[in-house]
Amino acid sequence: MATTTGRAAQARRAADALRQRIVAGEFEDGRLPDEHVLSRSLGASRNVIREALNLLRDENLVVRRRGIGTLVTAHTYRHGLDRLAGLAEELTSYGTVSNDVREAQVVPRPPPAIAGRLALPPGSEAVYIERLRRLDGSPLSLDSTWLAPDIGRPLLERDLAGQDLFALIEEATGAALGSAEVTVHAVTAEPDIARVLDVADGAALFAIDRLTRLSDGRPVDVESLRVRADRFALRAVLPRS
Amino acid sequence: MATTTGRAAQARRAADALRQRIVAGEFEDGRLPDEHVLSRSLGASRNVIREALNLLRDENLVVRRRGIGTLVTAHTYRHGLDRLAGLAEELTSYGTVSNDVREAQVVPRPPPAIAGRLALPPGSEAVYIERLRRLDGSPLSLDSTWLAPDIGRPLLERDLAGQDLFALIEEATGAALGSAEVTVHAVTAEPDIARVLDVADGAALFAIDRLTRLSDGRPVDVESLRVRADRFALRAVLPRS
Repeated sequence: MATTTGRAAQARRAADALRQRIVAGEFEDGRLPDEHVLSRSLGASRNVIREALNLLRDENLVVRRRGIGTLVTAHTYRHGLDRLAGLAEELTSYGTVSNDVREAQVVPRPPPAIAGRLALPPGSEAVYIERLRRLDGSPLSLDSTWLAPDIGRPLLERDLAGQDLFALIEEATGAALGSAEVTVHAVTAEPDIARVLDVADGAALFAIDRLTRLSDGRPVDVESLRVRADRFALRAVLPRS
Repeated sequence: MATTTGRAAQARRAADALRQRIVAGEFEDGRLPDEHVLSRSLGASRNVIREALNLLRDENLVVRRRGIGTLVTAHTYRHGLDRLAGLAEELTSYGTVSNDVREAQVVPRPPPAIAGRLALPPGSEAVYIERLRRLDGSPLSLDSTWLAPDIGRPLLERDLAGQDLFALIEEATGAALGSAEVTVHAVTAEPDIARVLDVADGAALFAIDRLTRLSDGRPVDVESLRVRADRFALRAVLPRS
């Protein structure tokens, strides 16, 4: 039962409570209360609090500065899971979203697995777009997108650096998006993706797969996102039935 | 642009496509097609496919057996994010859920941060329950739950090893649950939690915070879950508006 009563377990629980409060935006001035205050409010010893703060530091959520205290390094952005919204649509309230367009091209022979998910006819081309999302300049996610050619081709002329794909699709094609099937995984960062997202090798990331359909049900957009877990959390309010 | 065109990037994309198909339950017999078939269907070289399979092996999603091929090690269970359901309620279709009850007790002085989230009056006790969830015997998640005392006390006499807390709350108290606010983080496993969940140190986990309310809005249940990311994915179908 070491996990439930040992110091490591207590520290994990204290870190959970603090992570929740950080994500909820409770520490508006960016500074956590001192260890004594945290110790009282969380009902844990100073040693446990110190260990909890170290866990949050390892997650890149806080930095600890001698003589200053514990500072929240970056806001963690909450993405609602209640409706289909592009990242930028949701995140504009948090800061300025920009994109490094790493690839944007017509691919003559897309992988059959992708063509299958997009229900493309045999021999059809597809459009591939890869963007690194930044929020206030810092990397947030790497988004790889496959689009049906009639949907994707008009987008290649548009402002891919500044705009959400969802907004661009609806604006450029006049087609209304209907719904998306989203699957969320947690993974660790391989070295190449860690470099791009500016996190340590092995850091926790979300891997999000999203298949988006037009309102008539036609699948047009297959996306694979890698999102920094130190800057991003998913949030939903779920009804019981 | 090494990430978009190099072999590591291609392998990551191939792994993404395969992970999606594994989670969707496409390989019903538990065996992936051979490298040649995967190479054709994913439009990638054999070397890239091999690297992608190694990534999935590192995630614990598949094992590779010489002379046999690549086998899906465990089903990955999809948890819907469209309504409030207990894990066991959703997972019974996948297998048998059981719980090791690690702690179940009245705590005279719960941490103030917890008492605050549960809106407990000053000096109130609370009930703490910690359970290791198993699906078909294998660890899936560690669930730490704080309950308001009037809701939690009757549960201490119930079948905590066999039943979902949500079902128990509704059955034992006659109170109907209303909704929950859920925040989902991705984290890596510290050594103590890795041991309990039977994963490698540093493996990806979901950390899920859930505040559940009765139908009258009263908060009664604060949960912190650590869920193995190799056995679990979140899924939602999102409408555009």
